[in-house]
Amino acid sequence: MNKMTKVGIAAYGITPFRKDDQKIESVLLESVKDLFENNSKIEQKDIDAVLVSTNNNSKYLSPILSEMAGIRPKIAHSIENLCNSGTNSIVSAYSYIKSGLANAVLVSGAERYDSPGQILEWDNSRGEFKHPIFWASIFTKAYKREFSITDEDLAVVSVKNYKQAKENPNALNHKIYTIKDIVNSKKMTEDIHLLNCSRPCTGSASILLTSEETTKKISDTPIWITGIGQKTTSAGFTKSKTFSLMKSSQIAGESALKMAHRKINDVDVAEVHDAFSVCEPMILESLGFSEFGKGVKMIKNLHDTNNFKINPRGGLIGSGHPLGATGIAQTIEIAQQLQTHAKKRQVDNANTGLVHNMSAASTSSTVLILEK
Amino acid sequence: MNKMTKVGIAAYGITPFRKDDQKIESVLLESVKDLFENNSKIEQKDIDAVLVSTNNNSKYLSPILSEMAGIRPKIAHSIENLCNSGTNSIVSAYSYIKSGLANAVLVSGAERYDSPGQILEWDNSRGEFKHPIFWASIFTKAYKREFSITDEDLAVVSVKNYKQAKENPNALNHKIYTIKDIVNSKKMTEDIHLLNCSRPCTGSASILLTSEETTKKISDTPIWITGIGQKTTSAGFTKSKTFSLMKSSQIAGESALKMAHRKINDVDVAEVHDAFSVCEPMILESLGFSEFGKGVKMIKNLHDTNNFKINPRGGLIGSGHPLGATGIAQTIEIAQQLQTHAKKRQVDNANTGLVHNMSAASTSSTVLILEK
Repeated sequence: MNKMTKVGIAAYGITPFRKDDQKIESVLLESVKDLFENNSKIEQKDIDAVLVSTNNNSKYLSPILSEMAGIRPKIAHSIENLCNSGTNSIVSAYSYIKSGLANAVLVSGAERYDSPGQILEWDNSRGEFKHPIFWASIFTKAYKREFSITDEDLAVVSVKNYKQAKENPNALNHKIYTIKDIVNSKKMTEDIHLLNCSRPCTGSASILLTSEETTKKISDTPIWITGIGQKTTSAGFTKSKTFSLMKSSQIAGESALKMAHRKINDVDVAEVHDAFSVCEPMILESLGFSEFGKGVKMIKNLHDTNNFKINPRGGLIGSGHPLGATGIAQTIEIAQQLQTHAKKRQVDNANTGLVHNMSAASTSSTVLILEK
Repeated sequence: MNKMTKVGIAAYGITPFRKDDQKIESVLLESVKDLFENNSKIEQKDIDAVLVSTNNNSKYLSPILSEMAGIRPKIAHSIENLCNSGTNSIVSAYSYIKSGLANAVLVSGAERYDSPGQILEWDNSRGEFKHPIFWASIFTKAYKREFSITDEDLAVVSVKNYKQAKENPNALNHKIYTIKDIVNSKKMTEDIHLLNCSRPCTGSASILLTSEETTKKISDTPIWITGIGQKTTSAGFTKSKTFSLMKSSQIAGESALKMAHRKINDVDVAEVHDAFSVCEPMILESLGFSEFGKGVKMIKNLHDTNNFKINPRGGLIGSGHPLGATGIAQTIEIAQQLQTHAKKRQVDNANTGLVHNMSAASTSSTVLILEK
């Protein structure tokens, strides 16, 4: 790597996650407005790239959003990679700044509750099994069998994340649930209940990445992106050799930590992609937070001690999952934690944070390391 | 700008442009296969990013293409910005290499004849006028009136570009036409005839961008991207102050030339975005190739002297316009010209080339400068 400018998070904005029917353009604009309202030092004319993260089928969204927000960027386009579109866009913004092509990049992610990204269309050999719940179900069955885990054990993921989402004013869900509630909720497949699932929703999140100098000018509490790791292993999860290791997440995590010169034990707070309950322990194990098979134990321990270290905003299960916004909302949460602006969700001594965002049964993953 | 690695074009592949009904995944793969077949020094394992340029609504195309092509990239996503998705993807690839996040980036663009990018949906105030032909019609009317240009004068753009496309084996159209043929072709609007229009089609183009060292290893005739300019002025063309200047193209052109330390007179060969006949003179004027109102005269002169300097592959009018592939196909043409590999289309003394690719009435433009 070269000795160029650092890339920082200068500002962010977010909307409540909900189930309403607004147009995608309006949803995008809402978090951009929030960003400008929270940060009086940013002017439209200083933004030289606008990247839109979404699975929505509408075209030309970056120029449309730019026009609505009064921005005339150099670089403007939409980015899509299913559920990790958001962190793909953040990494792209990082590279524009690092390369010198841009100084200030607005990354704006949004989705509607009826996103076409919820259906995995490409693998026709799967017949009807196009909804992500089918891979999640196979993962759940395999994980439970391999490590002698029960439905009640796994339910603690949802119990913890719903509890944490209660303290997140933008979360889709503000109810709390017991283990009994989870295992008694509607059975979706043999191994998955309704409350094991994150829910599609409408929402938006925007973040402004800037060069070192500009970050320091705009933000009193700058946060730096110090590590990036990305990996795509395949497009279909049946290509994996095992259903208990998320290989792309493991590789992305190792790369990001290496780039940041950090170890997993240095991470004080993390957002990980709990699309379904089973994902959280599998990710914690693949990233090295826990030994294999011990992820659920770690999660139960965090829950029992009321420690918000993993998925403080409630994860995807508690917050909802507006696909294109998710990776950006995760990154905002970690930035807030490092700034000690996370209010009732605040983790102690948060100096190093991690964002893990993945797509389609972890066939593709991004990991970011954030530091003060 | 920093003193980092240069970014080069190490390889490319392309398909014939046609009207068939293949799946987008197969269309993408076709030009990637062509790229590998033409360049034995490239191995799948060396490619660390795959960017897909398209307006197609299918999701997760980069991981799907990667799996089909045997690539396991770090960075993988789709990029969309209507007609200039291709050059947006190339600039993104450039920034990944320049930033050090990637060493070799495969950019693969494809479209089907029925692309949803042909309909401009966002501006509901326009009622039925959602097809690009309506902005082109207003441009044509304004241009003809302002500079006393006739339909016969404008027809020379199509005559020239169809003639040049005849020498391009991948072009959609291999017929040649007279001025009479153009002005007598089906009337689409008051000012536009069928043969004034580029046609949507099915096709794909792929390009491999690499760091300086890798480019020199892979290619015997490396081509370097020395200038980049991009600008978005609005999302809807009715925001323009004038219909005879393409402001975003002018700004993008000036920026690209400045970055490359070149003047417009240094450019020996150019691909410009002739979506409709009127676009070609307007672009030549906005970029500074010609004085305002003199673009048609320049084009007529090139045609009369059989000089292929502008749109040697036949432009969009002659080659066809598979949206997501167009900017990449333009860039491949200029690379071939600089390599003196353009056969019957070859321009003399081609040392500096320019690519101009735009979207939606030039509300957004990219200009690239390529050099040996």
